[in-house]
Amino acid sequence: MENIKSYVQQHKDRFINELIELLKIPSVSADTAYSQDVIDTSESVKTSLEKAGCDFVEICDTPGYPIVYGEKIIDPALPTVLVYGHYDVQPADPMELWTSPPFEPVIKKTDIHPEGAIFARGACDDKGQMYMHVKALEYMVQSNTLPCNVKFMIEGEEEVGSKSLSWFVERNQEKLKNDVILISDTGMISNQQPSITTGLRGLSYVEVEVTGPNRDLHSGLYGGAVANPINALAKMIASLHDEDNHITIPGFYDNVQELTLEERAEMAKAPFNLENYKKALDLNDVYGEKGYVTNERNSIRPTLDVNGIWGGYTGEGAKTVIASKAFAKISMRLVPNQDWEQITELFTKHFTSIAPAGVTVKVTPHHGGQGYVTPIDSIGYKAANMAYTETFGVPAIPVRSGGSIPIVALFEKELKSKTILMGFGLDSDAIHSPNEHFGIFNYLKGIETIPLFYKYFVELSK
Amino acid sequence: MENIKSYVQQHKDRFINELIELLKIPSVSADTAYSQDVIDTSESVKTSLEKAGCDFVEICDTPGYPIVYGEKIIDPALPTVLVYGHYDVQPADPMELWTSPPFEPVIKKTDIHPEGAIFARGACDDKGQMYMHVKALEYMVQSNTLPCNVKFMIEGEEEVGSKSLSWFVERNQEKLKNDVILISDTGMISNQQPSITTGLRGLSYVEVEVTGPNRDLHSGLYGGAVANPINALAKMIASLHDEDNHITIPGFYDNVQELTLEERAEMAKAPFNLENYKKALDLNDVYGEKGYVTNERNSIRPTLDVNGIWGGYTGEGAKTVIASKAFAKISMRLVPNQDWEQITELFTKHFTSIAPAGVTVKVTPHHGGQGYVTPIDSIGYKAANMAYTETFGVPAIPVRSGGSIPIVALFEKELKSKTILMGFGLDSDAIHSPNEHFGIFNYLKGIETIPLFYKYFVELSK
Repeated sequence: MENIKSYVQQHKDRFINELIELLKIPSVSADTAYSQDVIDTSESVKTSLEKAGCDFVEICDTPGYPIVYGEKIIDPALPTVLVYGHYDVQPADPMELWTSPPFEPVIKKTDIHPEGAIFARGACDDKGQMYMHVKALEYMVQSNTLPCNVKFMIEGEEEVGSKSLSWFVERNQEKLKNDVILISDTGMISNQQPSITTGLRGLSYVEVEVTGPNRDLHSGLYGGAVANPINALAKMIASLHDEDNHITIPGFYDNVQELTLEERAEMAKAPFNLENYKKALDLNDVYGEKGYVTNERNSIRPTLDVNGIWGGYTGEGAKTVIASKAFAKISMRLVPNQDWEQITELFTKHFTSIAPAGVTVKVTPHHGGQGYVTPIDSIGYKAANMAYTETFGVPAIPVRSGGSIPIVALFEKELKSKTILMGFGLDSDAIHSPNEHFGIFNYLKGIETIPLFYKYFVELSK
Repeated sequence: MENIKSYVQQHKDRFINELIELLKIPSVSADTAYSQDVIDTSESVKTSLEKAGCDFVEICDTPGYPIVYGEKIIDPALPTVLVYGHYDVQPADPMELWTSPPFEPVIKKTDIHPEGAIFARGACDDKGQMYMHVKALEYMVQSNTLPCNVKFMIEGEEEVGSKSLSWFVERNQEKLKNDVILISDTGMISNQQPSITTGLRGLSYVEVEVTGPNRDLHSGLYGGAVANPINALAKMIASLHDEDNHITIPGFYDNVQELTLEERAEMAKAPFNLENYKKALDLNDVYGEKGYVTNERNSIRPTLDVNGIWGGYTGEGAKTVIASKAFAKISMRLVPNQDWEQITELFTKHFTSIAPAGVTVKVTPHHGGQGYVTPIDSIGYKAANMAYTETFGVPAIPVRSGGSIPIVALFEKELKSKTILMGFGLDSDAIHSPNEHFGIFNYLKGIETIPLFYKYFVELSK
């Protein structure tokens, strides 16, 4: 498929500049201060879909942020690909750790990206990967090679739990009818070794509030005589793991899908170097659940992490105070068969029950989603693998990811179709971290690979 | 001593307004943003001492904030009282919990203060209590009843460890020569039951930093595979107390001065109602070291409290991140014979040693000071008790306080004289908390009582 290669070469500067413009809008869905920017981003996505060649594009209102829907139906008798992505991004903080402003995209070369990478919040997750599909459509329309129908559903609440998306999908099953769902919101092993994500972890995200005395107290006059909410919170968090780093919440592991030794042996074949892994993170050692290796701990095992904690005096210098309240944001990554709502209930029940005397505890569920595993013998998986094989020269390796795209399970339930996770990002892209970036190579390679998926999917569907 | 009563009645509006002007200056020593205000406050204290009748007042430069020194020497042969106080205040945050701005003093009535109380940061701790001494001097000078020499030493770093004060005292022993040191920076049991603080706790204040990966990580891709600095910090903090709430730092209790059963029985005589105590703080239960009651836990026993904790995402909504670093401010209240510098070393050694694999720990000592106990058979104590007895109609009760005024031990060491802690504040004054206030009754009663201390101290010294 030489034409796509040359088309990308011919238009790559425009492709990059269009993405840079999109990245300039701070569409942080978690922070209401940016709500107008999130809205503006949906408008910008709508325009780009129209320009790319969709026959019909609309901004669909929801209880939350709007969903951009676009379609090009060339023949109802042909298969339909539904492309999902999200235009919202994670918060950028801690700002001070960014080497360039998160919403002023710049291209910088790195060891892994000698052709340069675009540095900006959302460059990879998910604006960059979502936009590859818009540009792939542009090519197929321009070259008249679109072999089937295509629908786009781009949402603005993925980073905060996709609440409105569930609402939208449940109400638009006919409109969203499709034969396969295509998502680029994951990564691959390396630029030399493509991989396809076949499993995702579920998620339960909660916020906890521990309250002691009704006001901040002088730690000298009251210290030792009343429960300190911060000490109490620390004690409660510490008790959530045992000495083997198993999670202690009763019933937490009840439905966990255990892998066979064969499956674990298969996983172990994926290239991985522990020393490089530690070096890349400046770690003296890795850490995790006893009985599992790193690549299992971050994919096939459920976990519990505190994502944020705060309480008392955190300013400059010293303040001798016992805080009235302490807070933490806690998330659990779940594996297939763990139901996130049930896990949230188990957590809430347990965490409330372990509150020491003298404090009260409030648990507020934020959001969550189910885990997912996709079969590797489906037409969609095979088409994706053929596409990667053609553009990278080597077949893709199936991998289980530790991340969560809760709506994948929802799609299967509501739309009855399988999702193919064609990711082009890298672990080193620092998504959710300062200095997030997306390789120019990866961006253009994605645009080049996607049309091949359409081609092979239609061929295999015949 | 009717004259002082009538003088106070005659001038009370001016006394209150002068204090209100002093409280308007935000002299927060912990935050460099307020450094000019701290300086301005020292100027204002200097002026007030001159107006009150000191013969000589100077602002003494130090490595930190200046110390205001003033004196009135009427006869070198007579005893000398050294008055110590501080013009700096605690940070005001959390601002949102103040019912009126912390640096816009207002007078409001409360159940405990039917005559009204001045609400402002520093109203009680220590601008209000310090200023009582300035006004008491004014009266003794105006009425020509000052029976001895008086020296004032008012510092601006008490809330951050009095570093410069130690420096100053060591270099000015001759200038500061005195027969007794008088401080009003503590409380009393109630407006009906005066008390004199006979013991103070020492303090060791440290900040800890736990570092995991070299950058914030996506909690899905890395969760479970690397040590989470927040979880690690929680685990380390939790391990600092055992199930009986004893502190687990090796050697921590080695030099703790244990009280005899008689002494504890004496302490138990102080009026205390546990139900009211819990009600006042909205607590379902108290909490603390096994084997001791509330009034022992907060006075004669050492404690360890986290005063602040922060790490990861603490903004609105959810961010699925594993933070690179987590922090906490931790203070230990110490009892007589515990050396704060040794305790700081023990803490640092222990806390560093319990860091789990995958994280590194840094401990930064902030400041500290020694505990102190004063004898109740000294001339100073007796004079103070006689003064309280005359103005309140009942004798004062000796109490051990949980708070720390580290420099009291320093004074004894460097100046070889005893300190008398004549406090007029109440536990309910919310010092170090939002809505700090100081009763008009307490303020005026203090001005009325202090000259009597001078009178009886000189008489008993003969």
